[in-house]
Amino acid sequence: MLSNSQIKHIVSLRQKKFRTEHQQFIVEGVKMVSELLNSEYKTIGIYGVEDFVKLLDYARSDRQPATEIITEIQLQKISNLETPNKVLAVARIPKKSGSGSGSGSAQLNNKLSLALDNISDPGNLGTIIRTAAWFGIENIICSENTVDAWNPKVVQATMGALFHVNIIYTDLENIVQEFNAKNIPVYATALDGKNIYESKLSPNGLIIIGSESHGVSQEILSLTEHKLFIPSFSKGAAESLNAAVAAGVVCAEFRRGR
Amino acid sequence: MLSNSQIKHIVSLRQKKFRTEHQQFIVEGVKMVSELLNSEYKTIGIYGVEDFVKLLDYARSDRQPATEIITEIQLQKISNLETPNKVLAVARIPKKSGSGSGSGSAQLNNKLSLALDNISDPGNLGTIIRTAAWFGIENIICSENTVDAWNPKVVQATMGALFHVNIIYTDLENIVQEFNAKNIPVYATALDGKNIYESKLSPNGLIIIGSESHGVSQEILSLTEHKLFIPSFSKGAAESLNAAVAAGVVCAEFRRGR
Repeated sequence: MLSNSQIKHIVSLRQKKFRTEHQQFIVEGVKMVSELLNSEYKTIGIYGVEDFVKLLDYARSDRQPATEIITEIQLQKISNLETPNKVLAVARIPKKSGSGSGSGSAQLNNKLSLALDNISDPGNLGTIIRTAAWFGIENIICSENTVDAWNPKVVQATMGALFHVNIIYTDLENIVQEFNAKNIPVYATALDGKNIYESKLSPNGLIIIGSESHGVSQEILSLTEHKLFIPSFSKGAAESLNAAVAAGVVCAEFRRGR
Repeated sequence: MLSNSQIKHIVSLRQKKFRTEHQQFIVEGVKMVSELLNSEYKTIGIYGVEDFVKLLDYARSDRQPATEIITEIQLQKISNLETPNKVLAVARIPKKSGSGSGSGSAQLNNKLSLALDNISDPGNLGTIIRTAAWFGIENIICSENTVDAWNPKVVQATMGALFHVNIIYTDLENIVQEFNAKNIPVYATALDGKNIYESKLSPNGLIIIGSESHGVSQEILSLTEHKLFIPSFSKGAAESLNAAVAAGVVCAEFRRGR
């Protein structure tokens, strides 16, 4: 049974303001909530309809949080999905251990990381996080004007990959300057960049993906040594690539070996 | 000024049933409608708010269709977008010149084409069409259970690329058998496929991308000689790739040269 104040609290987490205030976010569906329960994330509460709570995969039973059985009607009230999928969880936003400058970039030195400059579409951000996880990229650095990764649409679009990567919101210019100071390569996608298929790509460093409408900002590009371009094979003029597809092609090119 | 019957007609085109009956579909926004007007597609009507109809790029003025000035309130009534973008056009669904078996595959012999097996998410289909256009793939063959390409969400997600490719809905098994009979290579993404980065890829042939939830169907896979897999570099278990991102990585790998 859910109280009205519980419903009000859960619904409030659709807004960034309240997610930030409570440091909590929403995860929905049997598969996603199972992924949450098997991750390092802290689950605060689980709200599911009677017969489906049993379907959850509680692999780490020592971490099993309180589960409340609710009605379909209550689930509809708290769900963000067009078709609610049996269960909704409230989880804690992880502490920003890697956030801010200084402490952040040391852990990134020997790895390949992704940076996102002003990605605004939640579906794109979620798909980029999912893609990064596939290609073994653990750290995703988001500019402060990138859409909130704990937005419910982002969370669902990651298909659970969110729980396996570190998301760091910080000043992207600072991070790029730190990489430059340490001589760790920084790459950015740019229309006037070099053909990525003919470029030397390092096994570590930072890859910056730009916003859907404006690409990587001029401020960041002016700090970036290596500009990369995915060539088009189209005869037309106006084509472009979706930001998540571009991220996928770039990550594959870095990882595939030559 | 829009009559109630015009509004009713335009709104009806959100449904596949009425798009099929009238062979018409909806295109929205200044950029998309400009792309439509510069394409081979036939535009039936343009409905825009006063000051923004002027922003349209009528490059082919001989094909300029009738434009009706409407109010913001009327635009809201006919628009499918959360934030209507100044103009909406009704266009004709192109004749299925390449549709069906037989006549269809001859034009595909020397080209690289994409086939989609049961793609159900409109955003994914639109993004795949956009990606195919970027990589110079002109023909996209959709299984009959793939979501309708003239669905408004698909159209908008193509970002105009829809007007530069041929979309063919047909029986995918027949097409694969035709390719096989002609010894033109057919590739499909599959979890038990060969590492794509180590596979010989032909400059022509058919690449089959599977559905978001089930991949390429067993019926199609059993007919397909070359199964390809995009390796994961993740240490986790449950990750997967979005269908449009997978299509992008595969198209890039075919086009990049070795």
